[in-house]
Amino acid sequence: MAIATRATELLGIKHPILLAPMDLIADGQLAAAVSQAGGFGIIGGGYGDQAWLEREMDAAGSARVGVGFITWSLAKQPHLLDVALKRRPAAIMLSFGDVGPHAPKVKEAGALLICQVQTLEQALHAAVHGADILVAQGAEAGGHGMSRSTMPFVPAVVDTIPGVPVVAAGGIADGRGLAAALMLGADGVLLGTRFYATQEAAASGAAKGCIVAASGDDTTRGILFDIARDRVWPAPYTGRVLRNGFSEAWRGREGELMQRREEVGARYDEARAHNDFSIAALIVGEAVDLVNDVPPAAEVVRRVVAEAEARLTNRAERFRIVREPRLPPVHTLAAAE
Amino acid sequence: MAIATRATELLGIKHPILLAPMDLIADGQLAAAVSQAGGFGIIGGGYGDQAWLEREMDAAGSARVGVGFITWSLAKQPHLLDVALKRRPAAIMLSFGDVGPHAPKVKEAGALLICQVQTLEQALHAAVHGADILVAQGAEAGGHGMSRSTMPFVPAVVDTIPGVPVVAAGGIADGRGLAAALMLGADGVLLGTRFYATQEAAASGAAKGCIVAASGDDTTRGILFDIARDRVWPAPYTGRVLRNGFSEAWRGREGELMQRREEVGARYDEARAHNDFSIAALIVGEAVDLVNDVPPAAEVVRRVVAEAEARLTNRAERFRIVREPRLPPVHTLAAAE
Ligand SMILES: Cc1cc2nc3c(=O)[nH]c(=O)nc-3n(C[C@H](O)[C@H](O)[C@H](O)COP(=O)(O)O)c2cc1C
Ligand SMILES: Cc1cc2nc3c(=O)[nH]c(=O)nc-3n(C[C@H](O)[C@H](O)[C@H](O)COP(=O)(O)O)c2cc1C
Repeated sequence: MAIATRATELLGIKHPILLAPMDLIADGQLAAAVSQAGGFGIIGGGYGDQAWLEREMDAAGSARVGVGFITWSLAKQPHLLDVALKRRPAAIMLSFGDVGPHAPKVKEAGALLICQVQTLEQALHAAVHGADILVAQGAEAGGHGMSRSTMPFVPAVVDTIPGVPVVAAGGIADGRGLAAALMLGADGVLLGTRFYATQEAAASGAAKGCIVAASGDDTTRGILFDIARDRVWPAPYTGRVLRNGFSEAWRGREGELMQRREEVGARYDEARAHNDFSIAALIVGEAVDLVNDVPPAAEVVRRVVAEAEARLTNRAERFRIVREPRLPPVHTLAAAE
Repeated sequence: MAIATRATELLGIKHPILLAPMDLIADGQLAAAVSQAGGFGIIGGGYGDQAWLEREMDAAGSARVGVGFITWSLAKQPHLLDVALKRRPAAIMLSFGDVGPHAPKVKEAGALLICQVQTLEQALHAAVHGADILVAQGAEAGGHGMSRSTMPFVPAVVDTIPGVPVVAAGGIADGRGLAAALMLGADGVLLGTRFYATQEAAASGAAKGCIVAASGDDTTRGILFDIARDRVWPAPYTGRVLRNGFSEAWRGREGELMQRREEVGARYDEARAHNDFSIAALIVGEAVDLVNDVPPAAEVVRRVVAEAEARLTNRAERFRIVREPRLPPVHTLAAAE
């Protein structure tokens, strides 16, 4: 059983499920696992470490995967795009910022161009620069983004750019989310947080355990963790992380943290190195509520498809489409006395 | 044609579409129109004006409607609940804050208790106090709320409280949104922004025209407009409005605005009175992207149901459920040179 859309056809995949190119977490092993399960794995090129990138492309082995970049990291090291394109990936995904300078090279190399966008204006810009697939990202997503939400943003992108397949990202972690995204007009979904808590993800058991335990009520958007790790993004980008002692202690004191960055940063870096998530940020989205275990990535793909298919064919029987609903006797407001 | 769910059965309505109790905008006329079209109209009791409330309950005439209150406004004028209950409304909707003090009276009067919640903790609290229906509101919504998003929040509420019907609110304005909400496990939707731009809504043509013209990219959450109109909500509540000259001029200067409230407030109130939306806030959600006309409310209900039904039966043919997808030849990463 499979769900075919414009995106599955274009990418040549069985299931409309893409792995988010999560910096360092979506490594070659995880990307390969997602692709082998019938989805599309995208290696997280992230902030740009050439040795890491080459090693992980090797690790993906014979799996058909893509590579993701953050445009402004790429702008600092444009040769990384050549490094990736030399390996002839099926697709390059560009996230955040101006895709204009990089798009022609991707298209010339014959790779599909996937662009992750956060506003309608960015979606139009990416389409103009030849995006083959638009990933419409809502602010419930883990990691960086802006402020639109998946539910209203996805259909708005579909209406604005009907000719380009749209993939929904942000807040989706199960078959209900895939089915909902298809109803909104999307051609697939891109999952980050859900794949973070899989066996293959390049992360510690501690991090994965935190995701399983966390509540979506406890995530928040901000830039404190970016200041602490000395990697500040341009406004209005912020990142969604799990609230912790650090985020609460520094809430609203971004300026002060910037001034004391050297002193605090050292402690922060140490916490990161030791998986101390009371200080280091755990970068996850609201979808943590829907993540309750750490299965292999292939199991995630299988479950999401099976659950979506059951919903789409209404085997869950949560609603009925009826011709003549039976209504109770009409009861109106009583007259004033 | 109709879509039957636990919510339609409980409320005794034909279509799982609820009118949001928008303060002053959801008046008796609009609520009646939604109910007469087969949805469920809820009069916006809002900040509590007894004369307005009685007049609008009269105006609803023979239509079967509900009445909505903001709990902390109600706490200041608890008799308003008696005023409403005396008219035997089918349901009372309580939004924001502690429903505990008001719930027993609603239940004793035999009205259904609908609670609009913004976190899982609030959802549990409302369920414990006997909520018959939970409205799970995402931050893409127009008006006040918190920070969860509809896409991940709705299924999380459904999982947390499986025994109570859940209605999705925030970012839904068409049949795609209703169909998506049903896929997420919701039993219906509650629409604010969409019904604001209807002929019956108690708002000026200027306001409705602005909604039709606006982009969801141009909405923002904040408390500036609440400071200006001297109606500040407790943190972490904020309200979503359309960005305008006022919101941009005062951005990040909440403290200063509070200090200068008397001086600036007078000008603000005047702008409100004159529908000058370059200063006065237009309270709308991200769903403005999906609102392109000002039809009668009944036409909104009809369209939403027809579009949802087409999507749910996949007559839109955006995807296919297939047994054996045909895949192009496999193509893997090229070996490193
Ligand atoms: C840990 C983590 C790291 C991420 N890093 C990146 C990144 O390096 N580049 C990128 O384009 N997106 C990144 N994202 C965002 C994802 O591309 C995607 O938008 C998001 O994960 C989707 O929302 P979800 O987390 O609710 O599934 C990251 C997300 C997470 C959770
Ligand atoms: C103009 C406006 C006024 C609102 N006033 C209230 C209110 O007084 N009480 C309330 O419970 N919700 C109020 N809301 C929020 C709605 O109940 C609902 O959550 C929201 O409209 C749903 O999102 P949507 O606008 O995307 O449809 C208001 C919303 C709008 C747009």
